[in-house]
Amino acid sequence: MMFCLLVAESALILDQFLFSHDAAKELKEAISKKNLELVYLYDLNPVDEIWKESRPKPPNNPIRVHDMKYAGLDVASKLSSLRAELVGTGASAIVISMLDEVAWLLNLRGSDVPHSPVMYAYLIVEVDGAKLFVDNSKVTKEVMDHLKNASVELRPYDSILSEIRRLAAQGAQLWLDTSSVNAAIVETYKSALDKYRSNLGSKGKIKNKRYDESNGLSEGPSGVYMRSPISLAKALKNPAELEGMQNCHLRDAAALAQFWCWLEEEIHNNVELTEVDVADKLLEFRAKKEGFLDTSFDTISGSGANGAIIHYRAEIGSCSVVDPNKLFLLDSGAQYIDGTTDITRTVHFGEPTAREKECFTRVLKGHIALDQAVFPENTPGFVLDAFARSSLWKIGLDYRHGTGHGVGAALNVHEGPQSISYRYRNTTPLQKGMIVSNEPGYYEDHAFGIRIENLLHVQEINTPNRYGGIEYLGFEKLTFFPIQAKLVDISLISDDEIEWLNNYHSQVWEKVSPLVEGSARQWLWNNTRVIHKQ
Amino acid sequence: MMFCLLVAESALILDQFLFSHDAAKELKEAISKKNLELVYLYDLNPVDEIWKESRPKPPNNPIRVHDMKYAGLDVASKLSSLRAELVGTGASAIVISMLDEVAWLLNLRGSDVPHSPVMYAYLIVEVDGAKLFVDNSKVTKEVMDHLKNASVELRPYDSILSEIRRLAAQGAQLWLDTSSVNAAIVETYKSALDKYRSNLGSKGKIKNKRYDESNGLSEGPSGVYMRSPISLAKALKNPAELEGMQNCHLRDAAALAQFWCWLEEEIHNNVELTEVDVADKLLEFRAKKEGFLDTSFDTISGSGANGAIIHYRAEIGSCSVVDPNKLFLLDSGAQYIDGTTDITRTVHFGEPTAREKECFTRVLKGHIALDQAVFPENTPGFVLDAFARSSLWKIGLDYRHGTGHGVGAALNVHEGPQSISYRYRNTTPLQKGMIVSNEPGYYEDHAFGIRIENLLHVQEINTPNRYGGIEYLGFEKLTFFPIQAKLVDISLISDDEIEWLNNYHSQVWEKVSPLVEGSARQWLWNNTRVIHKQ
Repeated sequence: MMFCLLVAESALILDQFLFSHDAAKELKEAISKKNLELVYLYDLNPVDEIWKESRPKPPNNPIRVHDMKYAGLDVASKLSSLRAELVGTGASAIVISMLDEVAWLLNLRGSDVPHSPVMYAYLIVEVDGAKLFVDNSKVTKEVMDHLKNASVELRPYDSILSEIRRLAAQGAQLWLDTSSVNAAIVETYKSALDKYRSNLGSKGKIKNKRYDESNGLSEGPSGVYMRSPISLAKALKNPAELEGMQNCHLRDAAALAQFWCWLEEEIHNNVELTEVDVADKLLEFRAKKEGFLDTSFDTISGSGANGAIIHYRAEIGSCSVVDPNKLFLLDSGAQYIDGTTDITRTVHFGEPTAREKECFTRVLKGHIALDQAVFPENTPGFVLDAFARSSLWKIGLDYRHGTGHGVGAALNVHEGPQSISYRYRNTTPLQKGMIVSNEPGYYEDHAFGIRIENLLHVQEINTPNRYGGIEYLGFEKLTFFPIQAKLVDISLISDDEIEWLNNYHSQVWEKVSPLVEGSARQWLWNNTRVIHKQ
Repeated sequence: MMFCLLVAESALILDQFLFSHDAAKELKEAISKKNLELVYLYDLNPVDEIWKESRPKPPNNPIRVHDMKYAGLDVASKLSSLRAELVGTGASAIVISMLDEVAWLLNLRGSDVPHSPVMYAYLIVEVDGAKLFVDNSKVTKEVMDHLKNASVELRPYDSILSEIRRLAAQGAQLWLDTSSVNAAIVETYKSALDKYRSNLGSKGKIKNKRYDESNGLSEGPSGVYMRSPISLAKALKNPAELEGMQNCHLRDAAALAQFWCWLEEEIHNNVELTEVDVADKLLEFRAKKEGFLDTSFDTISGSGANGAIIHYRAEIGSCSVVDPNKLFLLDSGAQYIDGTTDITRTVHFGEPTAREKECFTRVLKGHIALDQAVFPENTPGFVLDAFARSSLWKIGLDYRHGTGHGVGAALNVHEGPQSISYRYRNTTPLQKGMIVSNEPGYYEDHAFGIRIENLLHVQEINTPNRYGGIEYLGFEKLTFFPIQAKLVDISLISDDEIEWLNNYHSQVWEKVSPLVEGSARQWLWNNTRVIHKQ
């Protein structure tokens, strides 16, 4: 992000297209405390000038229609719900700049951003129309027809500000989520509104107060600055989205079984593999699966001490060889045509130490506690965070990241608005249909890292009681892949927890074994056997 | 509270002495929405006028000195810490109207309020002095000497407002916690300050801005409106306070053993006892214990369906007979010279149903989970609340009250600032030395109520690791009294939980048996035996 800031003696120059309004405001305040000034750029970015002709062209990949069998809800229905929200707040239009929100609303997917199946675009949805601002060369005939069907008009990507000005000049009441809409759009709208008002004022209308009763406002438009309603709508997955997520997770598990079978064999044969080699090979296995499109983030492949670096990225030349005598942490995921995966497993290829086993087992106990949680509707995610930490806390351990993030359905691997974390200000309740990761961990500096991550979706639990006349919610697993039993310290685990693990492994075998053959199937068999307390 | 409001056509008249500033403000806002006006009373309360001579005199009980062996810290030290806080915020004095804060700061106790060992008083602590506003007739020679020692001057109770005016006229910067200081004081201070400023302004000083550099303020005094620092200081118990709390809990347990032994015997002999009879008898046993002063709240004695009324108060004439075939909930506590107790037990005198046992066991599991929690320093109490509910949630049950409240040391049975509850806005971390109740429950309308309550104090846990270089905290029990084993459904309870119960009962026997004899000792023995899973 920082490359868009240029220090010019006593000022910072900021490209307003690259910062959300709220982020720019925060930066402005921080900077003013240092006696620096923040200068906004509108038309000319000096960095662009330096690039001149040599600047790489913006991505130019064709957009595709996200099939109804995966999307589950047509564009017209999504737009109609959104318009009901517009009417409810008194806004005449909403400006959407979050790329995953645009993709979700229009059932479109792109490939302009690595790992995220989105395209560069803006969308303005009005009560009686919608305009997509996108580079025309990305729009295929199929996409064009699809948009026409939903009465979405096309506009050039760089005409967004002039459209904002045009709308303001008509007195449009725009809904802008300032946490995501860029500063250029917000500032353009505000100054255009000022102009609109002073024009009206000079005609003596503003002083009459009710100058525009048609929009029901007595004070004239000033903008609606609230959270976008699309974030929550997108988070509540419909049955088709859930089915796509379930299906792609099984294909993903098959690729993972082939991969881990291969990796263990190689390590057993003393083949020297770097962390990058391993990540590349995993990609190879995944790429063969139906509907594979991309990884969903940069694979975290960390052997020994590298596993303790939470966002470690192995790079060719500098990365380590996978050490057969140390813990190995692998956090990876994929984008498929029908869904998005994100899974972490931690394994030992040899004999784990008692310390490693104790830490792994406590992380697993936390994972199970969260997986098994049942909670009343309207419970914010943070309420469950401590369930995942409790077992580590008992011996004075913890981890410095949240326990769960939202995941898109064939969309971004990180999405809001929900979260399971110690960030207690996010009070968004967990709701039916939301997808969250369950990923407690423990990281011992200069030694090893442990994380166990599954994706879960929130569903109603058919509890024998419904105290308070409300629903009780819990989780259903999307991820079905073995957890290495060798790392479990049986003396630390309860009967219920062993039962959880055995049940889980039996489901893994049942669901994934039909998708694998030969040695991978044997590997899956070996890794899903029942374990006993004694 | 409502009797101080009089509806006078279109206005509500409010006695400002009876509402905190914040409560009055909230009321004013609520009332203005209903087109009513709020009129403040200063000098004359019409209710007082109606009472005339027949009005009961305000309580006139002597104040006593709270012995250093129980208080642990002398008044001079407490005042000195408080003065350091005053200097830190730039205040020249703090006005304290919370009665328990006055009592704690001055190591004094009174008996003006039922169940709470406090006296009606105000305290103003200045950087170089302190004044106690209290009815002189309550002040014994001993108290007078005690106060003189700490350089605390006495003032008549009803001279508080004139002192506020006097201080404002000197430009004093008063620290007022508007959540607790009454509206009369806040309003008096504000209007006196306005007067002070306009006086200064007319002398041309305000326009010179730095009219009073001596207090380091460039804008003149306007008051410091922050939480009182005494609430937290009072919540962090010192070793003497903890020792007093521990000791009085054992004497209280001895009284309870005598009481329950008696009650079971009476029920066994088919003696008909009302809920009030039972509460009275409990008081009789407690009153015989050394240092007993009062109950710490109205005893909640609820048989069967009455137990499901969370704040049930049995009254002579209308209350029920204790039914030998139903659950009986008893929540009670006492004020002793050295500490305050608060305990709830739920028992069945005959054969509990499977439903009663399941609910009781799940409440117990929640109680144990909270009791055993370990957590990093800076953890707000609400983070632990779900531990106590988790087992109930799994079958769709819950309870509509917080899980834990702060408890004073030989002071109010409810105190802040900490809380273990779903009120997520109270982010006060649990800290070493705090006392909290652990009281999950379950209430089945028209059937039964269950609550299991111990008091705990927060202490450092000697964990084998200290991840993040911080302390890990947990709880030590203050309450030692049997939990009825007959109500435990063994099939629902884990090995660890049985071990907890057996350990607890072994400690109960060890600590309380030396204080009881005869049949009560036998009762204690019977109720602290080891239970086995099979």
